[in-house]
Amino acid sequence: MKKYLQVHPWKVIEDGFDANNMEASESIFSLGNGKMGQRANFEEQYSGHSLQGNYFAGIFYPDKTRVGWWKIGYPEYFGKMINSVNWVGIDVFLDDEPLDLAKCKVFQFRRELDMKEGTLSRSFYAELPSGKMVQVQAKRFISMDNTRLAAIHYSITAVNFKGTLTILPYLDGDVKNRDSNYNEKFWDEVAKTSGDNQAALIVKTKKLDYHVGSGMRIVLLKNNQPISIASEPIERAKYVGQRYTIAVENNQSLTIYKYICNVTSLDVDPSHMFQVIDSELKNAVKTGFDKLLEMHRQAWQIKWEKSDIVIEGDDEAQQGIRFNIFQLNQTYTGDDERLNIGPKGFTGEKYGGGTYWDTEAFCFPFYLCTANQNVARNLLLYRYRQLDKAIENARKLGFTDGAALYPMVTVNGEECHNEWEITFEEIHRNGAIAYAIYNYIKHTDDKEYLAHYGLEVLIALSRFWSQRVNFSKVKGKYVILGVTGPNEYENNVNNNWYTNFIARWTLEYTLETIDFVKKQYPQVYQKLSQKIDFQETKECERWKNIIENIYLPTIEGTNIFLQQEGFLDKEIQTVDAIPRNQRPINQHWSWDRILRSCFIKQADVLQGIYFFLDKFSMKQVEDNFNYYEPMTVHESSLSPSIHSVIASHISRVDKAYELYLRTSRLDLDDYNHEVKEGLHITSMAGSWLAIVEGFARKRVVNGKLSFDPLIVPQWKSYNFKIQYRGQIVELQVKNEEVIIINHSSKPLELYLYGTLYTIAENGTLHYKKQKV
Amino acid sequence: MKKYLQVHPWKVIEDGFDANNMEASESIFSLGNGKMGQRANFEEQYSGHSLQGNYFAGIFYPDKTRVGWWKIGYPEYFGKMINSVNWVGIDVFLDDEPLDLAKCKVFQFRRELDMKEGTLSRSFYAELPSGKMVQVQAKRFISMDNTRLAAIHYSITAVNFKGTLTILPYLDGDVKNRDSNYNEKFWDEVAKTSGDNQAALIVKTKKLDYHVGSGMRIVLLKNNQPISIASEPIERAKYVGQRYTIAVENNQSLTIYKYICNVTSLDVDPSHMFQVIDSELKNAVKTGFDKLLEMHRQAWQIKWEKSDIVIEGDDEAQQGIRFNIFQLNQTYTGDDERLNIGPKGFTGEKYGGGTYWDTEAFCFPFYLCTANQNVARNLLLYRYRQLDKAIENARKLGFTDGAALYPMVTVNGEECHNEWEITFEEIHRNGAIAYAIYNYIKHTDDKEYLAHYGLEVLIALSRFWSQRVNFSKVKGKYVILGVTGPNEYENNVNNNWYTNFIARWTLEYTLETIDFVKKQYPQVYQKLSQKIDFQETKECERWKNIIENIYLPTIEGTNIFLQQEGFLDKEIQTVDAIPRNQRPINQHWSWDRILRSCFIKQADVLQGIYFFLDKFSMKQVEDNFNYYEPMTVHESSLSPSIHSVIASHISRVDKAYELYLRTSRLDLDDYNHEVKEGLHITSMAGSWLAIVEGFARKRVVNGKLSFDPLIVPQWKSYNFKIQYRGQIVELQVKNEEVIIINHSSKPLELYLYGTLYTIAENGTLHYKKQKV
Repeated sequence: MKKYLQVHPWKVIEDGFDANNMEASESIFSLGNGKMGQRANFEEQYSGHSLQGNYFAGIFYPDKTRVGWWKIGYPEYFGKMINSVNWVGIDVFLDDEPLDLAKCKVFQFRRELDMKEGTLSRSFYAELPSGKMVQVQAKRFISMDNTRLAAIHYSITAVNFKGTLTILPYLDGDVKNRDSNYNEKFWDEVAKTSGDNQAALIVKTKKLDYHVGSGMRIVLLKNNQPISIASEPIERAKYVGQRYTIAVENNQSLTIYKYICNVTSLDVDPSHMFQVIDSELKNAVKTGFDKLLEMHRQAWQIKWEKSDIVIEGDDEAQQGIRFNIFQLNQTYTGDDERLNIGPKGFTGEKYGGGTYWDTEAFCFPFYLCTANQNVARNLLLYRYRQLDKAIENARKLGFTDGAALYPMVTVNGEECHNEWEITFEEIHRNGAIAYAIYNYIKHTDDKEYLAHYGLEVLIALSRFWSQRVNFSKVKGKYVILGVTGPNEYENNVNNNWYTNFIARWTLEYTLETIDFVKKQYPQVYQKLSQKIDFQETKECERWKNIIENIYLPTIEGTNIFLQQEGFLDKEIQTVDAIPRNQRPINQHWSWDRILRSCFIKQADVLQGIYFFLDKFSMKQVEDNFNYYEPMTVHESSLSPSIHSVIASHISRVDKAYELYLRTSRLDLDDYNHEVKEGLHITSMAGSWLAIVEGFARKRVVNGKLSFDPLIVPQWKSYNFKIQYRGQIVELQVKNEEVIIINHSSKPLELYLYGTLYTIAENGTLHYKKQKV
Repeated sequence: MKKYLQVHPWKVIEDGFDANNMEASESIFSLGNGKMGQRANFEEQYSGHSLQGNYFAGIFYPDKTRVGWWKIGYPEYFGKMINSVNWVGIDVFLDDEPLDLAKCKVFQFRRELDMKEGTLSRSFYAELPSGKMVQVQAKRFISMDNTRLAAIHYSITAVNFKGTLTILPYLDGDVKNRDSNYNEKFWDEVAKTSGDNQAALIVKTKKLDYHVGSGMRIVLLKNNQPISIASEPIERAKYVGQRYTIAVENNQSLTIYKYICNVTSLDVDPSHMFQVIDSELKNAVKTGFDKLLEMHRQAWQIKWEKSDIVIEGDDEAQQGIRFNIFQLNQTYTGDDERLNIGPKGFTGEKYGGGTYWDTEAFCFPFYLCTANQNVARNLLLYRYRQLDKAIENARKLGFTDGAALYPMVTVNGEECHNEWEITFEEIHRNGAIAYAIYNYIKHTDDKEYLAHYGLEVLIALSRFWSQRVNFSKVKGKYVILGVTGPNEYENNVNNNWYTNFIARWTLEYTLETIDFVKKQYPQVYQKLSQKIDFQETKECERWKNIIENIYLPTIEGTNIFLQQEGFLDKEIQTVDAIPRNQRPINQHWSWDRILRSCFIKQADVLQGIYFFLDKFSMKQVEDNFNYYEPMTVHESSLSPSIHSVIASHISRVDKAYELYLRTSRLDLDDYNHEVKEGLHITSMAGSWLAIVEGFARKRVVNGKLSFDPLIVPQWKSYNFKIQYRGQIVELQVKNEEVIIINHSSKPLELYLYGTLYTIAENGTLHYKKQKV
C-alpha cells in the first residue's frame, strides 16, 4: 500500500475512497477514551472487507487455548479483549435499497481525524446502483469528558431523487471476533429494551460474566428542523434498533443524532445498567451534541497541554508524533489501576489486548512524564495487584517460597501466552517490572510507594531470580540457562547478557531498597517481612553471592557484551547481507534459520544499555551499538526507537533520525503492510522516547532533571513539556538556542548540557548554543 | 491400572470383564495383517468408553494443521492414518433390547489373543437389564493368507428366555477420529449395495480421494444347522447392514459367520471394487471359516518359523517377546514399498500413523533379520521414492542444490510435524536413514542396491550436512547450531555430539560409497552424477574438509562425549534426585524446567555409541554408559532397549535385563498408563534388539556374522533364528552351552565368542561354555 493519507500538523486526512484501504483506515481513524474504543467502521452497512471492532477496557474473554502439541504449564486459555456491541451502526435505505459504499460509486469521499478535538468526520457523495445519489456528512466522538458517552451526527441529503429514506440506528451484540480459536461467538444476551427514539441492550460474555450495557437515544432533524416521527422497534437476538421511514425530495436532508452510553460491569452493577444508561442519555440529549463535543474538546485540550510535542519545519514528523501521542492518550488515561495498555490499544484484535512488558519498557516513561503522577503509579499498582497471581504462575513452573514470575501476556494476572520459548523462557519481563519501579521512584521520588508497594514486588522478583540461576561448576559462576531474551530471534539460549544483567541489577536494587525501607519505614518493613516470611539474612546473603558471581558474557578483549553464550559460533554478518526479497526475514525464513542466524529482531544487549545508560562509558555504548545495530533487522516495531535513543546518546544524530522516522510514522505510512490489523500503540511510545530521551537526552542526574539536547538538521525547532516531581517543565530546542520554561510556582534546578541551572518560579532559561 | 492379563507363552488372556480396562484391551488385543488392522472393538454395540479403530495401511487424511503460533515452514496439514469403515459390527437385540456390555451384568468373560494362530476370541454370559441372559462366543481373524479378507464367527445362545433375537451385521463408514484437529469427519460415501445376506460400501476421504471398499457376506446357523431366512437391508448415509429377526427359545443358539473383504484404492481401482469384493467373498464363503482360518494359521506358522524367539524358564519374558514379535508382524509385512511402520501400528490414532526415524533406528534390524531381504529393501526404497520430497522439504527451509532433509513424520514424503524444535531442528533423522542403508549393506551385501539407490540418497543427505554446518571462527571448527538431538528434552542446542557425529559419519560413508560405486559401477555412477548435477571434486573436497574439522564436544580429560555444548553448566544429578511423585517428569514439570535439567529422555550420546559400537573401546562405552544412563529417565519407550543392548555389550547383564524388562512387557503391563492409546509398535522392535543385539550380541564382523552370547540368570535358555545373506542361522543359548544351527544348504562361517567357525550345510555347532 502506498501513502494515501495527507500530511497535516493536526489532522489525518483520507481524500477519495479506495476499498483496498478500508481496513487500514479503520485502524488509523480509530477513536477511544481509555475506557472504550473502536475501529473506524462505517455507520451504514458495508459489504466489503472490514474488521469490525468495538472494545471496552478490561472486558475480555478466556478463549480456549489452541496449540499443536500441549506442554505442561500451558495456560488453559488466552484472555482476549473482544469485539463487543456495535454501537455506531446506522443502516440507511433509499426505497429499500441499502446505502453500502462497497456497491456505490463514491465521490468526494473525505475522512478526517481531528486530533486536536478528538473527532472523526466523514463526507461523501454516493450513487447507488439504482442511480439515486445521496450526500452524507458524519461526525462522531467518544467523550473524554464523560467516558461513558459517545455521539454521532449523521446527515443525509437526497441529491437527485424523491422517495423514502429509511434510517435504522441500532445496537448489535451479535458480533464475532475474527480471532477466535475455535470459531465461537463470545456474547450472550441478558436483556434489551426499547421505547420511542431509544433502545438499550445488555449482553454478557459466555464465560466470566462480563456485562456490557449499551443504550442509544435518537434525535431526528429534517432540513435542519427537529421532527417527531414514530420509530418502529426492531429486535433480534442480541440486537435492538429503531427504524424511521421518511419521505424525502430532491435536496432535502435528514439528520440523525445518535447519543450512545456504554457501561460495563467493571463499573456498574448489571442490575442498574438500564437505569444508569437512561439517566446518562437523558442528560446527553438535553446537553446536546455541540455542547457535549465542546466539553470533549476541552478535555482533549488539557491532554494536549501536557503531552504535545511541537516540531517546526517538518510537517510529516509533526503529524507522526502527534498521531502517536493522540493514540497513547486514547488508549490509556490512567484513572483505573485494573487497566493497562494492549499492544494494539482499541484498534484491533491482534495480541489479544493483553498486557506485555511493552508497558513497563516502552510506554511507562510517556505516562510518567506527560500525566499526573498517579497515572504512572496506577500502572505500577496494576502489577502490584497481580503479584499473587505472578507467584502462582511461578509456582506452576516449579518455583517456591514466594518467587514471582509475571506473565508474558495477561489481563487479570494469569498467563495467557502459549509458546514455551516465550511463555516459560522470556523471563526478562520480570526485569522490566522492577525497572519501572526504579524509573518511577527516580522520576517522582515517591518513596512511600517504594515502601508500601514496590519492595514487596522487588523481593518476589529477586526470589525468582535467586531460584532461577544455578551454579555452574565448570564456570564457577551462577548461570541462567534456557531463556529467550528481548531478541526473540534466539530461543532457549544460555546466559543471555541482558537477562543476567537485569537479574543482577534487580537483586542489587532490591537489597538497596531493603536497606532504605528498613531505615526509613521500619514498621512497614517489619510488617512486610512477616507477611511474606522474609528470611532476610539468608535470602540477602544468597542474593549478594549471586550478584558477585553471576556470569556476564563478553567478547574478550573488547567492550562488547555478548548477547548470549555461543553467539560467536554463528556466521557474523550485517543486515545488508540479506537479499532484499528475503526481508523481513520473519516472513521468508523458516524459524530454525532465523534462530541460527546472527540477525537480531530488536534491541537485546542494547536494551540493557538503554535502561542503564549511566552505568556505561560512552565508548562502551558506542562499541556495542556499532556491533549490534548493523545486525538488527528491527522486525519488532519496538526496536528502532530504542536504537534511536542510543544513537542520540552517542551523538549520531543522522542515525538517530533515520531510526526515529521508522517509528514515528510506522502506522501512518504502513511500513509493514499490517496496519489493517490495528495500530502499534505500545511502540508509539517509542517515538516519544526517541525525542524526549533521544534528541533531548532527558535524564535524571543526582535527583535532578537533565537535558543535553540535540536537534535534527531537518527541523527548525521542537518543544515539549514534561512533569517532574510535581513541576511542569517546558523544553524548546532550536538550532541556535535552547529555552527552558519552569511552569510552576517553585524554582527548578536542572542540568542543561551538564551545567546546573536554577530557573525561578514561572521563569525561563535561554541558552545560546556555541558554534563548534 | 494393575496387571489384569494372564501370563501364557502363546496367548494373552483377559479373564473377567472390567469396563475400566476396555480401551487398554482394545489396544492389546488388536489384530492386523500389514494391510489392515484394527483395535479389538466389540462386535455388538458398546456404550461405554471405547476407542473405535479400523485402519488401512497407506490410507491417510491431511488434517489441517493446528498450532498456536504459526511459523514459516510449518506444513499445512498433518497426514493421519484414519479410523475407517467399521467392518466388525454386529448389533444384537433381544426383543428390541440391545446387547450392550456396558449395561449388562457380565459373567465368565474371557478374551484371548492366540498369537500362534493370530486369532481373537471372546466368550461371556451377559444378563441384560430385563433379566434375559445370553451366552456369546466370538472369534475373528484378519487373514495373513489373503490380506483382503477377514472373518468373524459369532454365536449367541439364549440362556433363559424365549423371544426374538435380532442380529444386524453392518459396515459403517460414518466414523470419526478421536484425533481430529477441527472436529471434522473425514469420509464421504461413494456407493453402496446390498442383496441377500450381503452388502458392500465404498467410501472415500474428503481430501485426496483415497477409496476404501468393504463388503460382507453373512451365513447363519441355528443350533448349528444352516438356516435360510430373509434379511432386511438397512441403509443410511455411509452405512449398510442386513437385519435378521429370528425366534429363539431357551438354550437355542444362533451363529453368524461374517466374511469381510476390504480393498483400498492403493491396490484396486474404485470402479472395480464391488466386483473384486464380490468375487473374493464368494470364494471366501465357499472356502468356509475353518479352512480360511487354517490357511491364515499356516501363514502365521511361516512367520513364526522365521521370527520367533523362544525363552525357557521365564513365561513372562516369553509372552512379552512373542507379543512384540506378533505385533511387529501384524504391522508390517514388507511386500509394498509404499508402506511403512507407524509408532502405534494399527492399534491407535496417536502419532498419526506416520513414519518416524523409529523405522530406521529401531525397527529396521528386526525386519532385516527375520524376513526375506526384500522386506528390509522395501523399507529403504520407501525413503528412496520420497527423496524428491525430502529435497523439496529442505528447499522450503532454505537449502539448495539437491540437499535433502527427510521429514520428522511423513506418510507420502511430505513433512507433517509442526513444532519448530522438532520439525526443523531434529535433523539427526537424516543420519538414521543413512545408517539403515549402511546396516542393510553390511548385513545383506546387496551392493547393487547401494549403487542403484543408496548412493543417490547418501549424496543428498551429505549435501544437506554440508550446508547445515557453518564454520565457527572462534573454534576454528565446523559447528552445527540449533538442533534437537535424540534426547528431545533438549531443544535448539549447539553441537549435539550425536548429530555432529552422525553427520560426519554420513559424509565419510558417502565418500566411501562414491569410491566403491565409481569403481564397480562406473556407468551407474556417471548417470547418477549427471542426474543430480554432482560436482564431485568440489563437493567431496568440502565434505573432507568438514570431516576433518567438525567439532565433537567431549568432557576434557575423560572418555565422555559431551551431549551438547553447555551441558556441564547444568546441575548434574542422577535420576534418583527426582522425587517419586514427580515422575515421569514430562507429566509433572513445565517444559523449561525439563530443558534446563540434565535429565535425558532417551539415548542420545549412547544412541551414537549403539550405532557404532565397533568404533569405540570398551572403556569408552563403559564410561559414557556410566555417565549418561543414570541421568536418563527413559520417558521414551525407545529408550530402555538401546541402553539394554549397550549394557549387554559391556557385560552388565543385570542392568541389561532390568532395562530389557522395561521394554518387553511395556504394553502388556501398561507401565505408563497409556496403552489405551495404542501399542508402542516401533519400540517393540527394541525388545528384539535387546535380545539379539543385546544378550546374544549379534554383530557383523569382517563381513561375517558374530555372536558373543550372554544369558540372563533368570532364563534357562533362549533361541532364535536370523537370516543372513540368504542363509538362516539358529542360535540356541543355554547356561552351559551355545548351539548354532546352519539351516541352509551352504556352509556358514561365523564368529562365536571371537573365534571363527565354519558350520557345514544344515550342520550344527555345539559350544560348551567354560566356567569362569
